[in-house]
Amino acid sequence: MAVNTVASTTASDSTHPGVSLGPAVALSCRECGERIPLGPHFACTACFGPLEIAYELPEGDPEALRARIEAGPDTIWRYAPLLPVPADVAAKPNLNPGFTRLVRADRLAAELGVTGELHVKDDSGNPTHSFKDRVVAIAVEAARAFGFTTLSCSSTGNLAGAVGAAAARAGLRSCVFIPHDLEQGKVVMAAVYGGDLVGIEGTYDDVNRFCSELIGDPAGEGWGFVNVNLRPYYAEGSKTLAYEICEQLGWRLPDQLVVPIASGSQLTKIDKGLRELIALGLVEDRPYKIFGAQAEGCSPVSQAFKGGHDVVRPVRPDTIAKSLAIGNPADGPYVLDIARRTGGAVEDVTDAQVVDAIKLLARTEGVFAETAGGVTVGVTRKLIENGLLDPTLTTVVLNTGDGLKTLDAVAPTTGPSAVIRPSLDAFRAAGLA
Amino acid sequence: MAVNTVASTTASDSTHPGVSLGPAVALSCRECGERIPLGPHFACTACFGPLEIAYELPEGDPEALRARIEAGPDTIWRYAPLLPVPADVAAKPNLNPGFTRLVRADRLAAELGVTGELHVKDDSGNPTHSFKDRVVAIAVEAARAFGFTTLSCSSTGNLAGAVGAAAARAGLRSCVFIPHDLEQGKVVMAAVYGGDLVGIEGTYDDVNRFCSELIGDPAGEGWGFVNVNLRPYYAEGSKTLAYEICEQLGWRLPDQLVVPIASGSQLTKIDKGLRELIALGLVEDRPYKIFGAQAEGCSPVSQAFKGGHDVVRPVRPDTIAKSLAIGNPADGPYVLDIARRTGGAVEDVTDAQVVDAIKLLARTEGVFAETAGGVTVGVTRKLIENGLLDPTLTTVVLNTGDGLKTLDAVAPTTGPSAVIRPSLDAFRAAGLA
Repeated sequence: MAVNTVASTTASDSTHPGVSLGPAVALSCRECGERIPLGPHFACTACFGPLEIAYELPEGDPEALRARIEAGPDTIWRYAPLLPVPADVAAKPNLNPGFTRLVRADRLAAELGVTGELHVKDDSGNPTHSFKDRVVAIAVEAARAFGFTTLSCSSTGNLAGAVGAAAARAGLRSCVFIPHDLEQGKVVMAAVYGGDLVGIEGTYDDVNRFCSELIGDPAGEGWGFVNVNLRPYYAEGSKTLAYEICEQLGWRLPDQLVVPIASGSQLTKIDKGLRELIALGLVEDRPYKIFGAQAEGCSPVSQAFKGGHDVVRPVRPDTIAKSLAIGNPADGPYVLDIARRTGGAVEDVTDAQVVDAIKLLARTEGVFAETAGGVTVGVTRKLIENGLLDPTLTTVVLNTGDGLKTLDAVAPTTGPSAVIRPSLDAFRAAGLA
Repeated sequence: MAVNTVASTTASDSTHPGVSLGPAVALSCRECGERIPLGPHFACTACFGPLEIAYELPEGDPEALRARIEAGPDTIWRYAPLLPVPADVAAKPNLNPGFTRLVRADRLAAELGVTGELHVKDDSGNPTHSFKDRVVAIAVEAARAFGFTTLSCSSTGNLAGAVGAAAARAGLRSCVFIPHDLEQGKVVMAAVYGGDLVGIEGTYDDVNRFCSELIGDPAGEGWGFVNVNLRPYYAEGSKTLAYEICEQLGWRLPDQLVVPIASGSQLTKIDKGLRELIALGLVEDRPYKIFGAQAEGCSPVSQAFKGGHDVVRPVRPDTIAKSLAIGNPADGPYVLDIARRTGGAVEDVTDAQVVDAIKLLARTEGVFAETAGGVTVGVTRKLIENGLLDPTLTTVVLNTGDGLKTLDAVAPTTGPSAVIRPSLDAFRAAGLA
């Protein structure tokens, strides 16, 4: 089939002979198309472009494939035939993320003036309560395949916890790197799984640079950095969001999706996942629009989109949406391409709008989102107001994490309606009866 | 069939004519057996004993019922035929809790010396990350059936959030009552859903007493208090834990279950659920043992069990396991009965053992449990050591909530392995390579 496939690749081509990662057959450069065998590589040897997975996806009857998926486990592993994982992945110890709720959001729709179907894909239901469990689960399989014994990453919080938990469950060692001045809550969430957690005196950029050095050093031998040398595998985990949304809609493409942008990888992989479903005949081929969402305090892609540029100019992040605060998003140009190609857009909202949107979603649907979910809901509202998103169509808005992880964002404006003595008179006087 | 059924009851018997809550046919006194029609009642009019739901459960072919359940949604509503909810419950806006992961815990088993199957039922995956979503979801259906427009409760945290979220999603007003001095994090989690949250100047006992007054007052008219006047319905939600565990084991009873005790209601309803599955022929009838778990600082049921008493003497709670800190557990005597009848036991662990057990579970399985989960894992270890729990059999340990909600328990002893400058030399010197 037509989506990123090669005619054939045998295991003996590989730098890791015997590696079997299901339908994944090679690494392919997103810039020049150069192909190399599967291995722990992330940059093209010819042009230094980013690598991604090329597949030989299952051919044949879409009905049979649909039935096979539906008979699978209630996790991302139901899509194992479309992922770079071994066929027996579900039998291995892992956190079994995915197949999170798609919430039909009628009350939110009413507030936003949406007359079509509005759904929230709520990824706070994952084991460590963010979409990171999806991508890390795929990276763990790559780590096992390449014989890595330590799982690592640079992180500002969510990813550190996801890696720590996944490594613990898989019986791998973990050693993750964070800026030394992270909030104590995030440190606890990352450290509780018992792996090594190293605070680096510096910014997140310093942490990243240090990890790149470590990969080239003997001290980092046998280490799989999920978001560096395992990144091509890791990133594919986001395709499962696209698969689940379509399956949960009854094997149907939504008309519009609103997706948060950090590095931009999630948005590009959701587009890849949708195109795969079309190519495989699992959904009817019809137009869809992908909208990207950023916080104003870190909106390089939104600025480029609105300015009509192809180049994304790096910014210094300053927003409460810390899980989206990547000032130099690696996939920014690809996001611009996708938004333009599909007829979508990229928009941003202020921190105050993020907080309002978190509360709006909680109040209408009982879903308490991380700041990133406030960004997507807030951007959805703004896109409707400025006429870019059609409120009469079927729209899916992503919430990629849990409000428990970013309590500070809403704490200053969220509290009791009243504090009273335990008496009926006091209660009546409070005006809440 | 034999489990808590009556020959027939028609809707016209009811104080709420037209109320249809599936197989639920009456309220039945757990002490004297007196039956009254379904309604928002919690105490027997004859003897003041606690009321519970009596059912007319589906008769006929167990295979057909199993198939019907398996074809249902991946939520507690797959068991709607066995719950006091309308048949179309899954189509109503609700949080869709349940069908959480049953984690096969081989690495934990190895540390505990368990050679049989060890599983953790991980209820942190529920929408607001505790088992409370199960019980509240059932209470919401009762509230709708009885025409209540405000959902309420007394709470020290988890329940307030679960009620706030469920009411928001259902489009009901909520007004929940908490002690005024709760930690800010818990206040935020409860208030973010936009309902009214009232701090009461006093202890949790004062909050409870105030809610009982409010039910009898015109100011509380039209209010459903999930854990007071809707308690018989609410409590049934815990049966779904038993159903899910058996279905996830392949329609098989575990040999041993370790369940936390707060009021004791969850443990008694799990036993009720298991007996229903046996009576319906959905699982093979064979012996099972139920073990209760408490924190030493609030262990009235454990003390009574070990002392050989039938009466549970109230205590003043002093433990980090706040979600289990009920000093006068209403279902305590029923728990003693069940532990003795099934050949189980009730045991308790110190706060230090709770913290150790939280970390043990996180380190071995990547599951970060609330303090209540530390209690059950810690008690499991103790029960194995003192020979009361057989490590060669199939055991299921419950984790009823999420570690993110009780970060304070592990924070003092959980932190980075090292803090270093971003250099390879500094990393090598830290001894982590």
